[in-house]
Amino acid sequence: MAERSSQELDRLRDRIDEVDKDLLTLLRRRLDLVGEVGSIKHEQGLPIYAPKREAAMLMKRREEATLMGVPPQLIEDLLRRIMRESYASENDVGFKCINPDVGPIVIVGGAGKLGTLFSQLFRLSGYEVRILDKDDWPNADAILDGAGVVVVSVPIHHTNAVIAQLPTLPKECVLLDLTSIKQAPLAAMLSKHQGPVVGLHPMFGPDLSSLAKQVVVVCHGRDEARYQWLLEQIRIWGARLHEAPASEHDQAMQLVQAMRHFTAFVYGAHLRRERADLDQLLQFSSPIYRLELAMVGRLFAQDAKLYGDIIFSQPDTLARARHYMDRYQEALKMLEHGDKAGFEAQFNDIADWFGDFAKQFQSESGNMLLSANDNRSEA
Amino acid sequence: MAERSSQELDRLRDRIDEVDKDLLTLLRRRLDLVGEVGSIKHEQGLPIYAPKREAAMLMKRREEATLMGVPPQLIEDLLRRIMRESYASENDVGFKCINPDVGPIVIVGGAGKLGTLFSQLFRLSGYEVRILDKDDWPNADAILDGAGVVVVSVPIHHTNAVIAQLPTLPKECVLLDLTSIKQAPLAAMLSKHQGPVVGLHPMFGPDLSSLAKQVVVVCHGRDEARYQWLLEQIRIWGARLHEAPASEHDQAMQLVQAMRHFTAFVYGAHLRRERADLDQLLQFSSPIYRLELAMVGRLFAQDAKLYGDIIFSQPDTLARARHYMDRYQEALKMLEHGDKAGFEAQFNDIADWFGDFAKQFQSESGNMLLSANDNRSEA
Repeated sequence: MAERSSQELDRLRDRIDEVDKDLLTLLRRRLDLVGEVGSIKHEQGLPIYAPKREAAMLMKRREEATLMGVPPQLIEDLLRRIMRESYASENDVGFKCINPDVGPIVIVGGAGKLGTLFSQLFRLSGYEVRILDKDDWPNADAILDGAGVVVVSVPIHHTNAVIAQLPTLPKECVLLDLTSIKQAPLAAMLSKHQGPVVGLHPMFGPDLSSLAKQVVVVCHGRDEARYQWLLEQIRIWGARLHEAPASEHDQAMQLVQAMRHFTAFVYGAHLRRERADLDQLLQFSSPIYRLELAMVGRLFAQDAKLYGDIIFSQPDTLARARHYMDRYQEALKMLEHGDKAGFEAQFNDIADWFGDFAKQFQSESGNMLLSANDNRSEA
Repeated sequence: MAERSSQELDRLRDRIDEVDKDLLTLLRRRLDLVGEVGSIKHEQGLPIYAPKREAAMLMKRREEATLMGVPPQLIEDLLRRIMRESYASENDVGFKCINPDVGPIVIVGGAGKLGTLFSQLFRLSGYEVRILDKDDWPNADAILDGAGVVVVSVPIHHTNAVIAQLPTLPKECVLLDLTSIKQAPLAAMLSKHQGPVVGLHPMFGPDLSSLAKQVVVVCHGRDEARYQWLLEQIRIWGARLHEAPASEHDQAMQLVQAMRHFTAFVYGAHLRRERADLDQLLQFSSPIYRLELAMVGRLFAQDAKLYGDIIFSQPDTLARARHYMDRYQEALKMLEHGDKAGFEAQFNDIADWFGDFAKQFQSESGNMLLSANDNRSEA
């Protein structure tokens, strides 16, 4: 390269480095300001995630960006990423305690991952938390004495037995579970306990640093008014509550969660039996291709028991899995007969049925794929 | 809320707004500087994606961030997103022409989406581009006269016929195709043309604004030395080239692409037949749950013919699809017998086989899910 150009390039890169350092300074300042906002929110008991203010702020920044010739999507994406950090940092400040007079919160299964997360959140909010784990049952009566809330957070296949095993709870105590199925545990809790009962399903893994924007499904059991404070507490942690009948929830979990896990399991078994060379497969990596592999492979980094539980815990899953096989066999027949026209006709039929959702799904996943491509690097 | 706190909150938010405006100013300055870098790269024919410089720069920023108490992953994520914009803006500047003396580039199927993208890239690099689309065959001889490169970019099931249909090409002309299968088109090109032949598979959709970091698979045909300039040109567009035998490429595409599309198709058929309420299903949205749905639904926003082609174009796919069904039936049997222990044992077996890849897939997809959660908003 010509020397003049090379010098010019170095000079420009130095200037870009300076801009990036200014960027770091701005970030530091912003995190500090957000920390101060967090302290006030904590005092006032305001939720850490304020969707309306956020939407208004992003809209304003987009407009300003457009005027300055900066792509509006760029500033929006950057601010959203920065806000993720802000939510996480609010965990350090703690949360307002909505119901300081309630008795101790007992987490049954509090040594598990999800139980630990909820213990932390309750403690950060100033509640007394007690753990009742596997080995603590001999002291159960003492641990549960005067309990204000009992949270059941044990593997699905133990949930009903654990609920049945509980001693009689104080009448005003709130009994709730965090299982990823809802009908059976809710029924078990209602028959066990005469007081307020509610089923919750936190729709996220236990490795989160913040509940901001995460969904918690709420299936009401009994005496809703007496656990409203608890729902409000969860909102303050940043979560969005979605109320639904337990049966509707369970059906949705079967259709998407259980069956997607089941077919991903089969795909893993398939790759193994076909002696796929994973290293080689990854060489052909495009973001979507990698993601398809990752959605299968990620399953097997997790707990066999957990997925066995999700798949085997509901009798209806078997019927769904049989129906899926019928569809598979129909599709295979088209492949055997080279019936491409039939395939295309059914494809278009399904596309009609998906309607606008197909476009929405494409655009949602498209954004993710762009961001996956951003994160790619290799020398 | 106490009035003092409310005022204090407003004051802090004003200051955050000021920081964000400064951020916009920095972004504008950075885009300008990157634009100047692009001009010099264009003059000098340097690739727009410089992985080593990028990695070194990110490492330095991470260190500086740590010293300032800014999370290093935050600055890395932000800079990666900003760089995406920089790549795209380099399209406006154009690219250096590596082989200005070559004859015209003829894109067979140049009116299609992928053909259009490659036409643009060649034109931005200063080449004469001619289009030979469906209706242009009567003038094929004139269009192909003196061609330096012929790019075949037509639907898979037409590729071989279109190659056969080509008139005899100038001996020094490079013949290449962009089909997503490689063995059959490569064989067809080698038997059609005596000169340099290469098969390419751009591993991305045609809707991209930049080739930066995207993978193009290269399957060598004949006279590699005589199309090296062309591979260099593609590198300048920002792509990463991955060389592989055509058979290896095709096998990978079957195992991942064709079979994932096929099973997603079956899943779409299944959801439809089970009368799933998509609107309701989306209410239970966690990032992973949404992504599972999106990976199925996105298929149906696309072209039935394209997916029919990918699935039906290779005879081996049928055998693979049958094997998959065998695995499905084995898994179903475990479900029928409530054999959770068997399921867990096989799960752990597959997990062992995935080895470290499972963790890698989990962490890759985990980052994507975090970014999906950033993009979520609702009032």
